[in-house]
Amino acid sequence: MNEFDIIRKYFVPLTQGHDDLKNDAATLQVLPGFDLIVTSDTSNAGTHFMADATPENIAHKALRRNLSDLAAMGAKPLAYQLNIAFPEKPQKEWLLAFTKVLLADQEQFGIYCSGGDTTSINGPLSISITALGFVPTGKALHRKGAQPGDHIILMGPVGDALIGLRVLRKEIKTGHDDYFINAYYKPMPRTAIVEILREHAAAAIDISDGLVADLGHITEASGCGAKITLTPGLFSANAVKTQIPAADLLTGGDDYELLLAVRPEKSASLIKTLTAQGLKPLKIGEFTSGQGVSVMDEKGVAIPLKNSGWTHF
Amino acid sequence: MNEFDIIRKYFVPLTQGHDDLKNDAATLQVLPGFDLIVTSDTSNAGTHFMADATPENIAHKALRRNLSDLAAMGAKPLAYQLNIAFPEKPQKEWLLAFTKVLLADQEQFGIYCSGGDTTSINGPLSISITALGFVPTGKALHRKGAQPGDHIILMGPVGDALIGLRVLRKEIKTGHDDYFINAYYKPMPRTAIVEILREHAAAAIDISDGLVADLGHITEASGCGAKITLTPGLFSANAVKTQIPAADLLTGGDDYELLLAVRPEKSASLIKTLTAQGLKPLKIGEFTSGQGVSVMDEKGVAIPLKNSGWTHF
Repeated sequence: MNEFDIIRKYFVPLTQGHDDLKNDAATLQVLPGFDLIVTSDTSNAGTHFMADATPENIAHKALRRNLSDLAAMGAKPLAYQLNIAFPEKPQKEWLLAFTKVLLADQEQFGIYCSGGDTTSINGPLSISITALGFVPTGKALHRKGAQPGDHIILMGPVGDALIGLRVLRKEIKTGHDDYFINAYYKPMPRTAIVEILREHAAAAIDISDGLVADLGHITEASGCGAKITLTPGLFSANAVKTQIPAADLLTGGDDYELLLAVRPEKSASLIKTLTAQGLKPLKIGEFTSGQGVSVMDEKGVAIPLKNSGWTHF
Repeated sequence: MNEFDIIRKYFVPLTQGHDDLKNDAATLQVLPGFDLIVTSDTSNAGTHFMADATPENIAHKALRRNLSDLAAMGAKPLAYQLNIAFPEKPQKEWLLAFTKVLLADQEQFGIYCSGGDTTSINGPLSISITALGFVPTGKALHRKGAQPGDHIILMGPVGDALIGLRVLRKEIKTGHDDYFINAYYKPMPRTAIVEILREHAAAAIDISDGLVADLGHITEASGCGAKITLTPGLFSANAVKTQIPAADLLTGGDDYELLLAVRPEKSASLIKTLTAQGLKPLKIGEFTSGQGVSVMDEKGVAIPLKNSGWTHF
C-alpha cells in the first residue's frame, strides 16, 4: 500500500463525490456575491496532540481547529485540503478510524475534502489543513472592530483544554479526566451560528492561544483595552473543582471557543437568540478606552498574570 | 522572537499589503466567471529536500512545486497559505534568506502569501503550502481528456532533478553539479503560458513522480495508452553526458515540467506559439488505443522499466 493506494482507498471517500483526487489540483466554485475565506492550521504529534493520541482524537482536533477559525470569521465551511505526513506506512486500522471521524465531522459541519498531499516524514505525524469557507462579500468578521463599551461575549467555558493537556501529561488526576481530554481534542466549532454572529458581532476571534492572549489580539487590532471579571460560567463546574488557579485557566490555549465584541445595544438580542438555540453565551466584561487586558476577581481585585498565553519557541 | 514576532517581521511582508495576518483567516475575492483552483504540496526536510538545504533552495522548491500544479490545471496564481513547522527557533538570517526568495518568486509568478500557520515540530523542518489559482469557469485542464492519436508534448527535459538528487547525496559527480542541483531545487512553473495551454491542450499534468508515472496518470484517467520514443531534447545535453540510463531519467521525479496531450491538428500551432516565446516544447510520442506507457529507443526497441516512478512508503 503506497500513498496512491492510501489516497484511493481512504482519502477519495472524504471528497464525498466532489473529486477523484486524480488531478494536480481541485476545482471549486465560489458563488458571485461571496468572499472566499481561507485558514490553515498545522497539527504536529508531540506539539499539538500527544504522540500516542488516538486517530479519532487527532482527526477531530486537526479539522475542528480550522472550522473554528472559519466560524470566527463568520464563514460557512466549503472544503478543506488535507496535507498529511506519515512517519511510517500507516496501518489500515489507523486510516479507517481517522477517516471515519473526518467523514462524521464533515457531515456535521458541512465541509468536504477537496484534496491535499500524502507524504512521508522523517519525524512525527504532521497534519496541515487549509480550510476554505465563504461569507457574503464584505461581511467577514475580523479581530478589528471592537469599540470601548462593547460587551465581551464568550461562547463557552475556557481552561478545560488546558486541564485536559495536564491530564494527558499525567501531571494531575481530576475525577473527570475523560471530560477534560475530550475538551482538549474535540472542540466545538460554532459554524452553525455564523449568520447570527455576523448580524450581531463587531469583532470575533477563536481562543486558541488562551483567553487573555486572544482577547489581547482583539484589543490590539481594535486599538482599545478590555476588562474582564471572573464570572460564573467562565470556567466549567468540573474545572472549578480542580482548584487550578484562574490565572492558569485564563491563559491556557486549545479551547477553540469564540470570543466576541458586541455593541451594547445588540448584546441582549444576541444572548437571547443564542440561548434559544440551547447555547450558553456569557458576558464576561467590556472593552475599554485603555489598552491591554485586565482581569478582576469577583471582588474587583486585579488578578496578576505571568504570561498571556501559549507561544511556540 | 516567538512565532508572533516571526510572523510580524518576516511573513507579513510576504502578503504584499493584502493582509496583516492578524485574523483567523484570510479574505479573498474570486471574480464571477472564474473557478477557484486549489492545490497543496508538503515539503519535508530529509524527504523533499536535503536536511542541509539552503533557505533559498527550500523556498524555491516549496512554492514552485505548487505553482507547477496550478499551471498543470491551466490556472493563473492567486495566493498561497504558508504552513511552516520549525524544529527549533529559526535564525534571523535563515528567515531573511527564505522570505527574500519567496518574495522574488511571488513577483515573478504573480502570487502573494494570504496566511498560514507558524508552529514548532519535534522533528524536521516541514513546509506545507496550499496554493489558490483561478481559471475561466469550466476551462480547467485535467489529466482526463487525452485520446488515441493525441500528441504527447513535453515542456522541458526530464531527469535533471534526479541527477541533482544523486549529486546532493554524493552518489555521483558530473562536472555540472550546480546545473543539476539547480534543476532539483528550482523548477520552472509554466504559469506564464496557461492561456495558451488551455487553448491547445486536451489534458495536462506536471511531472513530479517521474515522466513514465505521470504519463501513466494521464493514460489511466483518460482510458488510453501512450507510446514515447527517446527523442533528442527529452534529456538535457548535460544529462546525456552523465551516461545515466534512460530508464532512470524517465522514472526520476521532481522535474516539475509539464506534460500535455494535444490533438494532432492543434500540435503544430501550439509548438509554433510556444517556440515564438523562446520555449522548447517537444513532441515525444503519441497516445494510443492500448493501455499503459511504453518507451522505445531511437531504433524502435522497447526499453524495459523496473518501476514507473517515485512512491512514498
